[in-house]
Amino acid sequence: MSAAPSREALRKLSEDYYDLNGSFIETLDTPPSPLQFSRLIHVSRPVIIKGWLLLVYILSNIDILNSGHDVPPLTRWSDQYLCERMGDHPVSIAVTPDGRADAVTKGPDDKLYFVEPHVEGMTMSNFLAKLDVLYLQSQNGNVYTDRTFEEEDDPSEFDPLRDDIPKDVPWCTEAVDRSPDAVNLWIGDGRSVTSIHNDPYENIYTVVRGQKHFILLPPTDGWCMQERLYPHARYTRHRPDAPLSLQPSIDAPPVRWASIPDPHIDPETAFPPEVHPLFVTLNAGDTLYLPAGWWHHVRQSGLTIALNWWYDVEMRGMTWALLSFLRGSNDVPPGNASDAGSSEEIDAPLEL
Amino acid sequence: MSAAPSREALRKLSEDYYDLNGSFIETLDTPPSPLQFSRLIHVSRPVIIKGWLLLVYILSNIDILNSGHDVPPLTRWSDQYLCERMGDHPVSIAVTPDGRADAVTKGPDDKLYFVEPHVEGMTMSNFLAKLDVLYLQSQNGNVYTDRTFEEEDDPSEFDPLRDDIPKDVPWCTEAVDRSPDAVNLWIGDGRSVTSIHNDPYENIYTVVRGQKHFILLPPTDGWCMQERLYPHARYTRHRPDAPLSLQPSIDAPPVRWASIPDPHIDPETAFPPEVHPLFVTLNAGDTLYLPAGWWHHVRQSGLTIALNWWYDVEMRGMTWALLSFLRGSNDVPPGNASDAGSSEEIDAPLEL
Repeated sequence: MSAAPSREALRKLSEDYYDLNGSFIETLDTPPSPLQFSRLIHVSRPVIIKGWLLLVYILSNIDILNSGHDVPPLTRWSDQYLCERMGDHPVSIAVTPDGRADAVTKGPDDKLYFVEPHVEGMTMSNFLAKLDVLYLQSQNGNVYTDRTFEEEDDPSEFDPLRDDIPKDVPWCTEAVDRSPDAVNLWIGDGRSVTSIHNDPYENIYTVVRGQKHFILLPPTDGWCMQERLYPHARYTRHRPDAPLSLQPSIDAPPVRWASIPDPHIDPETAFPPEVHPLFVTLNAGDTLYLPAGWWHHVRQSGLTIALNWWYDVEMRGMTWALLSFLRGSNDVPPGNASDAGSSEEIDAPLEL
Repeated sequence: MSAAPSREALRKLSEDYYDLNGSFIETLDTPPSPLQFSRLIHVSRPVIIKGWLLLVYILSNIDILNSGHDVPPLTRWSDQYLCERMGDHPVSIAVTPDGRADAVTKGPDDKLYFVEPHVEGMTMSNFLAKLDVLYLQSQNGNVYTDRTFEEEDDPSEFDPLRDDIPKDVPWCTEAVDRSPDAVNLWIGDGRSVTSIHNDPYENIYTVVRGQKHFILLPPTDGWCMQERLYPHARYTRHRPDAPLSLQPSIDAPPVRWASIPDPHIDPETAFPPEVHPLFVTLNAGDTLYLPAGWWHHVRQSGLTIALNWWYDVEMRGMTWALLSFLRGSNDVPPGNASDAGSSEEIDAPLEL
């Protein structure tokens, strides 16, 4: 018997969740106290926190009063400032033909692949000059990793900018009683899109410049993502001036990824009627609490700079086990029909 | 198609939950701060808190320093003290032939019923003199209801004891940001048993005298409770000196209740191997945090007095929807085969 929950049961759960919660998103004008934020983590709904000055700097490890600045350092992040601070330091940039890194794409053999970007080192000024197919998004704790909090050596490409970036979000650190697992810097523009996925992190996401557009769904809607297993590939450049080509990986395990159409293009087609995506736009200075396990699709308007702090999800209790359960961890069919072994039973597509 | 999750999926969830959490129960020697308790509610595992003096009185609404007592009022709850304070005030006592109130019992027609106790008013001294088939357990906020916190009139049979009983548990009230929904007093002995069930409350349970024995299972183990729908009945006495008889109710809706054997008698028979019940004994002064949705069977050794504070579970977010989902709310078969209508599909018994 299948070890995945039945689809009917999960549809009912989506409906019950929506009946209880609607599409309400709380907006706070000031950052929460640690106790208030602990309650919000338990509720596990997205929250928008306005006013990054308060958010990031009050109580933070950056002493703005004694920093000699009359505005928070992040508000000074013009192109010119970033180029001057970073100088000739090379930074790792995701290069793709279409701005879609970490996404499912058709390869030259007509098979679908989960494709990671080509990564090139370049200076900040080169990057900002030709941003339109590039995305600074290394997602590996490119500003700080947990090594910082374990007082180990923690080198970063963005060392020249670290003075401007808080190591943690104090009210979140105290609420969850642990340090961030990673702090990331993201710079991209309208062509950079993050395809829909979820993460096992409590995520604090602050927009520094520009505008981010999120499509959000709760973990209880995971059943409609139609996750499939895709072979892994990577964009590569065979010569420095050659165009990018999609290179299937030899040894990488297949990647499990949502197979639904891009929900930004048509949410009606992407999702069944039981689920009710939330649409959130963050402006500079706005922060989103994106709870662990929430599905998110992200795009931006114009040049957009953001920072995020990932905190490990609570592993005790039911959260982790339920997130796995709601993804139906044991029954993911292949994304290409030709990969279906005869011994493997393939789920029929969802009848939406 | 059934709207209940598949049993295989739920079995796997039980196993995953156990793999992540084991049988560990945290014990605190001092009460948690509100922030610490908020984190514990999010983890949603039982916690034992030792030292009721600290628990109940520090920060509480009873000002022990100025109360003229050198010990907390509850430690003085001898039979004599309770009888003197209560005097001739009648209190509502649950009367059953066997100490099993709110339990499934065979009626004279050989059908199974969910039977509520007969309730008789008697004085505290009469009650304590013939305790062995009686249970003071009215469960309706018999000490305080939410009317107290809304500053409305809130009469109680136990008004003479209210001075000794804290209205709330301050660190819990602050963690959940609401007042208790009900405060209850429980007095029973070894014959009084509470059959296995769960409640939609965060429960703070303090033993004042005697010993309570809990068998606990997480909400993820709800699938093995084999819940069934039972017709409702009540014990009644047709004359004041007549024996109790089981009286099926005319208009009451059927009651959904676990159909497994009493897990105290043989946990091996009651539960399948995937689930791992926790066994917890509380002594006088010990407090249990029993998280919302946890299944519990309760019995006691000798005369046992306890207090509990019920706080409504958080309705926002996933908790409530998931608790319903894990109980498979829509597919409960009747507990008596003769009640199965021809139009209704009956689930086969679980293959344990």
